[in-house]
Amino acid sequence: MKLLITGGAGFLGQRLARELLARGSLKDAQGAPQAITELILLDVAQANDFGDSRVRSEVGDIAQRSVLERVIDENTAAIFHLAAVVSGQAEADFDLGMRINLDASHLLLDVCRQRGHRPRVVFTSSVAVYGGDLPDIVQNDTALNPQSSYGAQKAIAELLLNDYSRRGFVDGRVLRLPTISVRPGKPNAAASSFASGIIREPLNGEEAVCPVSGSTRLWLLSPRKAIECLIAGLELDTATLGNQRVLNLPGISVSVDEMVAALREVAGDEVAKRIVWQPDARVEKMVGSWPARWDTSRAEQLGLRGEQNFADVIRAYIADEGVQAR
Amino acid sequence: MKLLITGGAGFLGQRLARELLARGSLKDAQGAPQAITELILLDVAQANDFGDSRVRSEVGDIAQRSVLERVIDENTAAIFHLAAVVSGQAEADFDLGMRINLDASHLLLDVCRQRGHRPRVVFTSSVAVYGGDLPDIVQNDTALNPQSSYGAQKAIAELLLNDYSRRGFVDGRVLRLPTISVRPGKPNAAASSFASGIIREPLNGEEAVCPVSGSTRLWLLSPRKAIECLIAGLELDTATLGNQRVLNLPGISVSVDEMVAALREVAGDEVAKRIVWQPDARVEKMVGSWPARWDTSRAEQLGLRGEQNFADVIRAYIADEGVQAR
Repeated sequence: MKLLITGGAGFLGQRLARELLARGSLKDAQGAPQAITELILLDVAQANDFGDSRVRSEVGDIAQRSVLERVIDENTAAIFHLAAVVSGQAEADFDLGMRINLDASHLLLDVCRQRGHRPRVVFTSSVAVYGGDLPDIVQNDTALNPQSSYGAQKAIAELLLNDYSRRGFVDGRVLRLPTISVRPGKPNAAASSFASGIIREPLNGEEAVCPVSGSTRLWLLSPRKAIECLIAGLELDTATLGNQRVLNLPGISVSVDEMVAALREVAGDEVAKRIVWQPDARVEKMVGSWPARWDTSRAEQLGLRGEQNFADVIRAYIADEGVQAR
Repeated sequence: MKLLITGGAGFLGQRLARELLARGSLKDAQGAPQAITELILLDVAQANDFGDSRVRSEVGDIAQRSVLERVIDENTAAIFHLAAVVSGQAEADFDLGMRINLDASHLLLDVCRQRGHRPRVVFTSSVAVYGGDLPDIVQNDTALNPQSSYGAQKAIAELLLNDYSRRGFVDGRVLRLPTISVRPGKPNAAASSFASGIIREPLNGEEAVCPVSGSTRLWLLSPRKAIECLIAGLELDTATLGNQRVLNLPGISVSVDEMVAALREVAGDEVAKRIVWQPDARVEKMVGSWPARWDTSRAEQLGLRGEQNFADVIRAYIADEGVQAR
């Protein structure tokens, strides 16, 4: 079985690759396990190939058809399309966001269609497709109303994937991800970057700026569970999905104050005191437009699981990343 | 005031042009009436210019940037973007639908953005953006779930127009039109073409095929009221619209049986007997996925009006088109 991960050098792409290589196989469209024989990691930067002979790292611009034609052929059984320009950056650089989040997603679907073999495509969407006056718990039939260019681009790519699936060009699955926390590494240009930073930096002995108020509610999922959901999403039986190709993934609804309390519980008061409160209206507006909770009954019926509480998420981060709290 | 109508040679485009020329002025963004000095009609075919010196008929492919750059400049105060590939055709020719309904709409917004003067743009959307399990009365916050490529393309263009408006590149208004009935002229490739045909052809002494069952419910608006709503939509105060740029236009919810009964009431039994019932599963599936009614309170609050009953619509058609019922 030949697989492609776009954004394969990114944080989720690398972690997904590592997990797929460790598992060694994936269910095919008929539900039978098939050995993973080739895993292409496409990105603008060279992806780590883990010294594994099954991995091929391809550097290229995903918005170019020739690049996609190089990495998708009739043997490509499944694609995890993770490549994206994050929310803050898509707002700052309109053209770049349109080019990567919309044009490249469309191009990818079109190259699949041209190949003619109906590959499975997992597309990661976001809380940012929602916005405006939202119910306390967003339902599966709540209208999308993105309040950012990133959210609009994700919502458009969802519609494209739905239509390409309906027409039989791909066998698509849209997984709407909660905000991922705790991400390791450095802050990025996502408006939600702080949702990892206020845990990661204090654990690392550094100060972290929190740009939103403590009462702001977030909808979070750990990287570990996100990867599990991506793989489970790909393996879902097409017949079970029917025409409902979009899944709101499970998450935890927490306020920033509750996140800080969990950090205090896990790592102590000295660590939690390293958060500096410095409101940023731009970030507050964008993050505040996102849902604090959505109905996850369908994802759960299909066997997709998240965490139960945020302290466990912090503990998993500490364990996975080998963090020595200071 | 300089205006552009895309799809200007089409039925609605021509009727809108005639009405605008007759009115002679439109409110500007500040609500002050301004004389219409230039009206460009862009289409793939030569549009009738009514022998009016204010009209410029431009023939060109709207999916080409150079064509749009020729008809949109810094003096273009407002654009009615009506050009579209209809539902049945977009389903039959996927590439053409994507090119005109999606790519060209995106390009039009992008040329406006490049000009930098934030023109008003009225975009006509459709009942086809809805689908799946719908409530009896579709609400403003009911999720879009298109079951046709046409519907998906319209929903995507809505999202683009919303985001380009939010960013201040255009001052956009999306008017979701009910099915327009009674259209004069010939049948077209729209799945809803019969909704005019079963009235128009019998009045003209001809048989008409009805491809759906009599219990199928439609959401209808007359051409006359559609044109009034398009102009009223353009003239709406930007501040009143806020971030809610989408308006579901008023309509009448009628079953096909009720349409036939109205035809019998207006024109007699002999005329109504000219309808031939010949179910077409493809048409039934697409039309059946559309809402039979939606909540129109917002449009009505903003002063947009439709008809009260379908017999009046038939009478207006007979009067407007000078039909001699046979």
